[in-house]
Amino acid sequence: MVINGDIIFTQNNDGFEIYENGFLVIEDGKVKAVQKDYSGNEEVINKQGMLIIPTFVDLHLHANQYANCGLGYDEELLTWLEKYTYSEEVKFKDLNYARDIFKEVLTKLWEAGSLRSVIFASLYKETSELMFNLVSEAGLSAYVGKVNMDRNVPDFYIETTEESINFTEDLIKEFNNNSLVKPIITPRFVPHCTIESMQGQGDLAKKYDVPVQSHMNESLAENVWVTELHPEYKTSTDVFEKYGLFGGNSKTIMAHCIHNTKHELELMKKRNFYPVHCPESNANLTSGIMDVKGMLEAGLPVCLGSDISGGHNLFMPKQIILAIQLSKMKARMEDDLSKVLTLSEAFYMATKAGGSFFGNTGSLEEGYSGDFLVIDTDSIMAPHEVRSPIERLEKFLYIGSPSNIVERYLQGAKIDKPFKE
Amino acid sequence: MVINGDIIFTQNNDGFEIYENGFLVIEDGKVKAVQKDYSGNEEVINKQGMLIIPTFVDLHLHANQYANCGLGYDEELLTWLEKYTYSEEVKFKDLNYARDIFKEVLTKLWEAGSLRSVIFASLYKETSELMFNLVSEAGLSAYVGKVNMDRNVPDFYIETTEESINFTEDLIKEFNNNSLVKPIITPRFVPHCTIESMQGQGDLAKKYDVPVQSHMNESLAENVWVTELHPEYKTSTDVFEKYGLFGGNSKTIMAHCIHNTKHELELMKKRNFYPVHCPESNANLTSGIMDVKGMLEAGLPVCLGSDISGGHNLFMPKQIILAIQLSKMKARMEDDLSKVLTLSEAFYMATKAGGSFFGNTGSLEEGYSGDFLVIDTDSIMAPHEVRSPIERLEKFLYIGSPSNIVERYLQGAKIDKPFKE
Repeated sequence: MVINGDIIFTQNNDGFEIYENGFLVIEDGKVKAVQKDYSGNEEVINKQGMLIIPTFVDLHLHANQYANCGLGYDEELLTWLEKYTYSEEVKFKDLNYARDIFKEVLTKLWEAGSLRSVIFASLYKETSELMFNLVSEAGLSAYVGKVNMDRNVPDFYIETTEESINFTEDLIKEFNNNSLVKPIITPRFVPHCTIESMQGQGDLAKKYDVPVQSHMNESLAENVWVTELHPEYKTSTDVFEKYGLFGGNSKTIMAHCIHNTKHELELMKKRNFYPVHCPESNANLTSGIMDVKGMLEAGLPVCLGSDISGGHNLFMPKQIILAIQLSKMKARMEDDLSKVLTLSEAFYMATKAGGSFFGNTGSLEEGYSGDFLVIDTDSIMAPHEVRSPIERLEKFLYIGSPSNIVERYLQGAKIDKPFKE
Repeated sequence: MVINGDIIFTQNNDGFEIYENGFLVIEDGKVKAVQKDYSGNEEVINKQGMLIIPTFVDLHLHANQYANCGLGYDEELLTWLEKYTYSEEVKFKDLNYARDIFKEVLTKLWEAGSLRSVIFASLYKETSELMFNLVSEAGLSAYVGKVNMDRNVPDFYIETTEESINFTEDLIKEFNNNSLVKPIITPRFVPHCTIESMQGQGDLAKKYDVPVQSHMNESLAENVWVTELHPEYKTSTDVFEKYGLFGGNSKTIMAHCIHNTKHELELMKKRNFYPVHCPESNANLTSGIMDVKGMLEAGLPVCLGSDISGGHNLFMPKQIILAIQLSKMKARMEDDLSKVLTLSEAFYMATKAGGSFFGNTGSLEEGYSGDFLVIDTDSIMAPHEVRSPIERLEKFLYIGSPSNIVERYLQGAKIDKPFKE
């Protein structure tokens, strides 16, 4: 398979690789080459004048909060959870409700070009199981987590420690040998998991070599609470580390990582650790601005997440642009312009950095999975406007929408809109 | 004319007026009443289940920068002007080019529901004249400014002091008696106008009682430059004040107002002064975060502007939400939660505050101009999602788009899409 268009991707985060009117050669679902000319015998699919870029990777989202997108941002994290979030999530005990919402979320992810994602599904085992199956049916790729929470949540929305562990293990056994849709161990965050639960989850991570996702250092009040609950430790990092949930055996995703200590940063650097920046959520919930540039310079693979419904947009370009804007505001307020994220850095976070959690995905280098989008920017150009490929990418990221994405490919196969009536 | 739907507006900025399934009565182009029931004889236009809100007012935008939306945000203000902006604006000497772009901008303003706006049109007299006529043809309302700049700009893009003054006066004479499309005196900013030009513009403002618009205190480098150019003064405020361009005789719009001194704030409060917050532009160009809350508390009518192409979105809800988000980031970084803007405050800025520049517009109180939008939020609701009117407004502002606006009214008359082929 050979596709001809304006091919752009990031090999490193310090600039774009650009092949104007280039050729993307895919073989066995993987990138065989990106080249300026093509003289082989394959039929060339003509996408001249269109952009060809890697698919987006959304490393953090709550599928069972989707209906709350755009609501409740008058509160900060802990009160937002109490006031708006649990009451929505509890509805997912009803599998019919869950199915309708999950199909909508996966359709929106498809529309947005986020063909790979890492999902908080539901407290409930059957509902989480449903999500695994729907992702498969949609032809997308994801890590799906059954959310574990056995303390400090309302009576109407809690499980026992045994349920957390047993259901998590059941789902690991059922799905761990899948290739595109895989399980991820998901303690909600330190305040919502007993130490017994965390111990059990850490044991499962080790036993099955399954990755872990959670949240930490999102809000100041959360951090105070963690210290109150675990006076023997100073941070969520220490607690997770104690129970094998901090990238010890398995790679670990932690959303937010805003209010970190130096000690935590040191441990992050030693571990198989993916900090996920969720700028929209952090702005909506008054959480703060992650020191993305500092973490990148420390060599950490900072990724991007929509974090719906703390965030309200599944379209990753919105997160890319807001990440840049917030970094500029941090730079201005701290009078340190070295904190400004560049476009290629933020794009890299939303593609190759997040993609690396799935292996060789998120770039169009040789050997990478053939995951790419074809983008038509004609509708966002002004009259008479003629732009270079990189300018068209920039305009797509700033003012484009999912409607500019005309084709989506995963492992070299075109993915059609899922769940058609 | 009577319209039945979920009517929401802001009378003050501390909360919404909500009439669920209410009736908006329009007479002679003005709001006669908003009421819970209606028993009169007029035919009722049924928009049940839809939102009816005031039209948006965009108090600051550069129509001749439209094609640059989404480009060039790797620079701060002064270098951005040099590197990206003048070279685009100079194209507007060509009236055919200008006409095509201006029609696109006005169509986008219409789509976005910003039926009233305050526009920087062009350096060129004929091009500015064209904008007046196109706004009229579109059926919209605007203040249109011929941009004056007679120093410190490139040779290929400058005018003489006489041209600044004479052309400005010509356009005032031609359009000052219009009702919907009116002139506004537009010194670009202090560094771009000689004192002779500023004196002449101030004289015209007084002679014809015409309002003024400009920029100030947007970037730190700009402020240093102003001090270098005018060592006898300390701030742009002092310079504008000296030449009658600071709300002395005429109401004055100043975009940005980020880096203000206390002295400037005191003078703003005494004048007929409209500070315009342009959050997207300020984030893109690393300008900083306006202290919106502080200025509101000082009693200043802070408005909102898209400031394309410093900003990249003409859809005012994007500015409303980013204004809130930036205020939250300012609050978090300054550890002062009183800096957080509420939804009603930001909505008020984009409707009634901006609208007050045009007289009684931007609200749906009795006697206000019948300027309103009809909004259908069905397409942004999740499956099974049922929400109250205020929740639907919140969702529209966060995740909606111009496509949710189904009808647009100005002075009680429905405005159709302009410039149809």
